[in-house]
Amino acid sequence: MSLIRTREESFINLNPLQTGGRTNAAVRVTAASYVDGYSVCDYCKGVLHLIEKPPICELTKQLAEFLNMDEARLTLGAREGKFEVMHTILSPGDAIVVDSNRHYTTYVAAECIGAKIYEVPNTGYPAYEILSSAYRQTFDEVIAQTGNPPKLALLTHVDGEYGNLVDAREVGQICQEYGVPFLLNTAYTAGRMEVKGKDLVADFIVVSAHKGFGVPGTIGVLATTEKWAERLFRKSVRYPKKDIELLGCTARSAAAACLITALPYVKERVKDWDEDVKKARWFVEQMEALGDIEQLGIKPTKHDLLRFKTPLFDKMAGQQRKRGYFLYYELEKRGITGIKPGQTAWFKLSTYGLTWEQVKYLFGAFEEIAKQG
Amino acid sequence: MSLIRTREESFINLNPLQTGGRTNAAVRVTAASYVDGYSVCDYCKGVLHLIEKPPICELTKQLAEFLNMDEARLTLGAREGKFEVMHTILSPGDAIVVDSNRHYTTYVAAECIGAKIYEVPNTGYPAYEILSSAYRQTFDEVIAQTGNPPKLALLTHVDGEYGNLVDAREVGQICQEYGVPFLLNTAYTAGRMEVKGKDLVADFIVVSAHKGFGVPGTIGVLATTEKWAERLFRKSVRYPKKDIELLGCTARSAAAACLITALPYVKERVKDWDEDVKKARWFVEQMEALGDIEQLGIKPTKHDLLRFKTPLFDKMAGQQRKRGYFLYYELEKRGITGIKPGQTAWFKLSTYGLTWEQVKYLFGAFEEIAKQG
Repeated sequence: MSLIRTREESFINLNPLQTGGRTNAAVRVTAASYVDGYSVCDYCKGVLHLIEKPPICELTKQLAEFLNMDEARLTLGAREGKFEVMHTILSPGDAIVVDSNRHYTTYVAAECIGAKIYEVPNTGYPAYEILSSAYRQTFDEVIAQTGNPPKLALLTHVDGEYGNLVDAREVGQICQEYGVPFLLNTAYTAGRMEVKGKDLVADFIVVSAHKGFGVPGTIGVLATTEKWAERLFRKSVRYPKKDIELLGCTARSAAAACLITALPYVKERVKDWDEDVKKARWFVEQMEALGDIEQLGIKPTKHDLLRFKTPLFDKMAGQQRKRGYFLYYELEKRGITGIKPGQTAWFKLSTYGLTWEQVKYLFGAFEEIAKQG
Repeated sequence: MSLIRTREESFINLNPLQTGGRTNAAVRVTAASYVDGYSVCDYCKGVLHLIEKPPICELTKQLAEFLNMDEARLTLGAREGKFEVMHTILSPGDAIVVDSNRHYTTYVAAECIGAKIYEVPNTGYPAYEILSSAYRQTFDEVIAQTGNPPKLALLTHVDGEYGNLVDAREVGQICQEYGVPFLLNTAYTAGRMEVKGKDLVADFIVVSAHKGFGVPGTIGVLATTEKWAERLFRKSVRYPKKDIELLGCTARSAAAACLITALPYVKERVKDWDEDVKKARWFVEQMEALGDIEQLGIKPTKHDLLRFKTPLFDKMAGQQRKRGYFLYYELEKRGITGIKPGQTAWFKLSTYGLTWEQVKYLFGAFEEIAKQG
């Protein structure tokens, strides 16, 4: 029996995981057409990124260019890309420095390698900001403790908790100064805004295409510079075409064909990023004006992922029959979904991809609910 | 612009990579409905295999049961599952024994770990058989060279070169006798025929669902026994719900929802396996009767993946304007595809999923082409 999901058709979906991955009609046609497993392998000559029909070879070149890096490969997602870089560079016990706002998979990938993890602290309430200078301090601590700089540093370009955009170029320059390879996780930036890896002094960029490029999962991009390409994309001794770290081929699915369809749209949509941020800022302003609501993270926000501290709704929950679930159901009644059920003291949402009309409708819904209290 | 692929609608597709992964109508509806990235995460409580809506928690239980193992997780494919087992068990320099008919990804995954690879030879032309007794000999060689049995043994249940089915239970018993953990790669068996892991004395089973369960990629299954579950599925110290080796969650895509839809069909289709083998055998018999064509691998075959040595077509190629490509184009004219363009001295094909009528039509096409010579 088929399973039916209508979230994107029937609701305004605010789930930050999902707003940048929403597929458009053209991508859906490709997805349906290439639905079967190994569909992109019809004319394979041995390696995914060299397939000419559909033009995945051209896609990977364009992705490298789009990210301003020298070489790119498809991966199965951002976490898989992070693991591949770590597995190439780190041995068990080696030090890695990561920002404390990082996604859990950054931590788990480093744990899987057996690396020693040092975290760059954020500035705490209310901005939770990662300052580039804190990388310098953490590097110095690693040197003091181990005698050497870390073997790798990772920065989450925009994190999934506060939507904070970090000055990656400053972090990259500090990495360069200390001779530390720099891995930039752009899961929440690439595909939304322009990301030019070499301008940010990045040695490695990982992308989540099903999070940021409007394609089905699971697929990502791993891009690097000439300096690292040979090592990261080292070949099997026995199978000289096959990338060892990628286990040969990665996104051997419709997702690879969909990314070909999606890329031209993505190249266009990143040009609208300033307008996307404007919508998010307008929404924050309106929400805070309701009183007893505070946007956490840097202000004004530079991203669509918004975290709100909402004593207003939390107090209301105490009066409601559905308790903490009331907000979820009140929004649902108004055709809005994507906030975690049960959360009222704080919640995250993303305004990405909404029109001005939708953002206004969204605020109107919150305002209406707030005024019931 | 959308990309269009009509291989499954317009052709009889013989590509062995693709015949077991062909999606049915019900699966396609689920795929279209869950097309967006992270679509299965709508009601996530932190871990993919515990999601209740869609019922992935029930799916993983059913998969463990279907494979007669104690615990199962979704992976991103068979190669990823193999890597995860190897990465859990092996340190660089450790010995792994694998059959020489193994998929290239078995070799590359072991290379990625830095393991020392020992290969169990096959019997050579014409059967290229992997005898269980050869595992015993290879184990003895490893012991003679290193003083210890290998840390892991892998068997490809049916290989992708000859379609040879190996007696996995005998290999499993030898592994048990030597105290060697036993990893069984069922990419070409599970989903086609019944595979009961514990009956085969397997410690680990990897499945390729986009190869054998009729679902979109990329997705697989990794199953193990009580004895190994805690180690293989060890949890993050910081994130106690997250499987370290899986980097948290794997098939966070439509593929997971599709596997829920597909499993009941797969449970039914494995009951028809004897008939599938009968069709393959009939086809082999007819082809060999054309003369100057020989099926390689064990005989009579026990699988739908067939490798033919075809001097008949090779000689014809010499007379043709299109040379080695003539066979590909002659088949294409008759609505048949999936044989590698340019190959006439030998080729592989799979008869899986064809009706008797289609198998007869297929042979008729080859016969017609042969008689042109």
